[in-house]
Amino acid sequence: PPKRVMVIGGDGYCGWATSLHLSNKNYQVAIVDSLIRRLFDHQLGINSLTPISSIHDRIARWKSLTGKDIRLYIGDICDFEFLSEAFQSFNPDTVVHFGEQRSAPYSMIDRPRAVFTQHNNVVGTLNVLFAVKEFREDCHLVKLGTMGEYGTPNIDIEEGYITITHNGRTDTLPYPKQASSFYHLSKVHDSNNIAFACKAWGIRATDLNQGVVYGVATDETSMHRELYNRFDYDGIFGTALNRFCVQAAVDHPLTVYGKGGQTRGYLDIRDTVQCVELAIANPAERGEFRVFNQFTEQFSVNQLARLVTKVGEEMGLAVKTVSVDNPRVEAEEHYYNAKHTKLTELGLKPHLLSDSLLDSLLNFAIQYKDRVDSRQIMPNVSWRKIGVKPTTVS
Amino acid sequence: PPKRVMVIGGDGYCGWATSLHLSNKNYQVAIVDSLIRRLFDHQLGINSLTPISSIHDRIARWKSLTGKDIRLYIGDICDFEFLSEAFQSFNPDTVVHFGEQRSAPYSMIDRPRAVFTQHNNVVGTLNVLFAVKEFREDCHLVKLGTMGEYGTPNIDIEEGYITITHNGRTDTLPYPKQASSFYHLSKVHDSNNIAFACKAWGIRATDLNQGVVYGVATDETSMHRELYNRFDYDGIFGTALNRFCVQAAVDHPLTVYGKGGQTRGYLDIRDTVQCVELAIANPAERGEFRVFNQFTEQFSVNQLARLVTKVGEEMGLAVKTVSVDNPRVEAEEHYYNAKHTKLTELGLKPHLLSDSLLDSLLNFAIQYKDRVDSRQIMPNVSWRKIGVKPTTVS
Repeated sequence: PPKRVMVIGGDGYCGWATSLHLSNKNYQVAIVDSLIRRLFDHQLGINSLTPISSIHDRIARWKSLTGKDIRLYIGDICDFEFLSEAFQSFNPDTVVHFGEQRSAPYSMIDRPRAVFTQHNNVVGTLNVLFAVKEFREDCHLVKLGTMGEYGTPNIDIEEGYITITHNGRTDTLPYPKQASSFYHLSKVHDSNNIAFACKAWGIRATDLNQGVVYGVATDETSMHRELYNRFDYDGIFGTALNRFCVQAAVDHPLTVYGKGGQTRGYLDIRDTVQCVELAIANPAERGEFRVFNQFTEQFSVNQLARLVTKVGEEMGLAVKTVSVDNPRVEAEEHYYNAKHTKLTELGLKPHLLSDSLLDSLLNFAIQYKDRVDSRQIMPNVSWRKIGVKPTTVS
Repeated sequence: PPKRVMVIGGDGYCGWATSLHLSNKNYQVAIVDSLIRRLFDHQLGINSLTPISSIHDRIARWKSLTGKDIRLYIGDICDFEFLSEAFQSFNPDTVVHFGEQRSAPYSMIDRPRAVFTQHNNVVGTLNVLFAVKEFREDCHLVKLGTMGEYGTPNIDIEEGYITITHNGRTDTLPYPKQASSFYHLSKVHDSNNIAFACKAWGIRATDLNQGVVYGVATDETSMHRELYNRFDYDGIFGTALNRFCVQAAVDHPLTVYGKGGQTRGYLDIRDTVQCVELAIANPAERGEFRVFNQFTEQFSVNQLARLVTKVGEEMGLAVKTVSVDNPRVEAEEHYYNAKHTKLTELGLKPHLLSDSLLDSLLNFAIQYKDRVDSRQIMPNVSWRKIGVKPTTVS
């Protein structure tokens, strides 16, 4: 069974929670991270709602609490010399790849950041594919994709492939993608590159098309304040439900973009770590490019706003909602029905969004409300207004 | 009507022929080229069958013959500062973008060249999109894609989009792509990025999914030996039919990869220049991402080998065919039926492959046979054996 797991991007929101979860489940874990996500915070003048410890303190605390070692390789996977050293030093059975620039708005700030996002994500993933081929061809690549790769087609979204009958002939082909930011597009590029590497080189890979992640605490990150996960509420890295909870906590109206009919798949971060573990424990076959849609429930933005309003009011908060001009280019009312049965078949036990989770998320936001910088709440990146020059002030 | 055409990659095989054709048709032409294609020849120890003049001599000769000016901007479009200067200096109504690393085998030599190909092609095209948005939003982008983006699905290939009925609902979606080299994948990435830019920014673009180009002479390149086009017969940049003609001319057996049932769309270079002109003269609408399949006939490799054998024997050549291990990963027997009606509807008058064209191509190869380096004929790049280290000897 695969025991040695390299988590690229293991200092980030999903990566840190996953690293601890896998270590707790007795996998041997190595984190590979350039820590550039922390640099983005400095450059953009934003910060996690939760105070987070350095990766060095996090790993030391985990060792002192559990006795378990997590290895750390600090460097950039776009530097192949670094990646090949890390690979040959650790010899992973599985590589979990979270190590990408993961914000759609970040990729739409300006031309340099659009180019950075595609270069960083595409070249980093190419390097991982080459490292697997050259050094560890049996290694299973578990790659984080996004449900955003599919866009919002007017037919059901399948898991990676669709069987098409056309002019009397039938084939099963990659599901057509319609991504809508340079970030989402970079994930489409990755998926296409990985599919080719599986076919040409016999690599085994699982593409996890993840929905929007909410929540902050997992069993492991809750063990000590030095293990706390980051929690982004700003207009660039914050995700919808997390942002609404912080807005409710600080008496800011919930910011619904446009009509609010945008429907997406969502999941609790406790299910992210569970899904990744299931993918690792049940690896793809050699040569297989396997695609799972990784989410548990669908919501529209308006549904989320109503849920937060209801729970907030029960807690005595006066929650208002405001519609703001949509900074994105996206359908605001559309059909959406995405399949997500494959991880369930592997044993996923979902944590569905309930009043109790929303209650705890809201209380969590209230606990840290003094750390909220209200200038970071409104969206400030426009899909249509992106320019060619570097944006140097936030 | 659009009159100012910027041809990126205007010193290359298709780009040079197109630049002269458009200039001859009274378009104002500017060539943008880094000339890196000529550097590849030096680095790989290969050369065009035809002796080609420098871009400076080419343009000077064209001026002395016709009185027409072609402007020249030498630089790399991955350098946005260069591209933006060229754009603002020339103010194109149309940008024709041939400026990419265009060889599948080149992209499969080693990891650095795989990464170079994707970085160069994807970032170059992103920069062109940003230049259009920022400086010339009405400018029509005519982008060279490839039929290889589609792969070999077991259903008919449509022009860019396919209407799918699935679980009782219907939508028209991007045609699923299955590219099979890092080069072909880079074109898929480009197509996805361009489609997004059209939707988000209202850019007008035409993606020309071109088949395999054969031939060498156009009306314009034939006017003077300093205007001759390049003609690649080597295993890296040479295309199938052109390579077979050179092989027949030097008594080398025709090299069929594997079973030879690989079927693709083909076109004469005189139709390349005609198709590009038709796309320019009939631009896409604002916000439209238009896709044309640019080829005139389908052939299998075995069919091409038989044609060259027949014509060669009529000319007194003893033409043999040999099956070599397929260096690529591709289906060798498959269904293939690709639509290509849209350019015909715009008025394309195809030059179909005839004995007379093959006859002239063979005579052309015989004329230059003393320039053939027989070490360059066999394929020497393997899709499966590509490694991580730079290949420094050819």
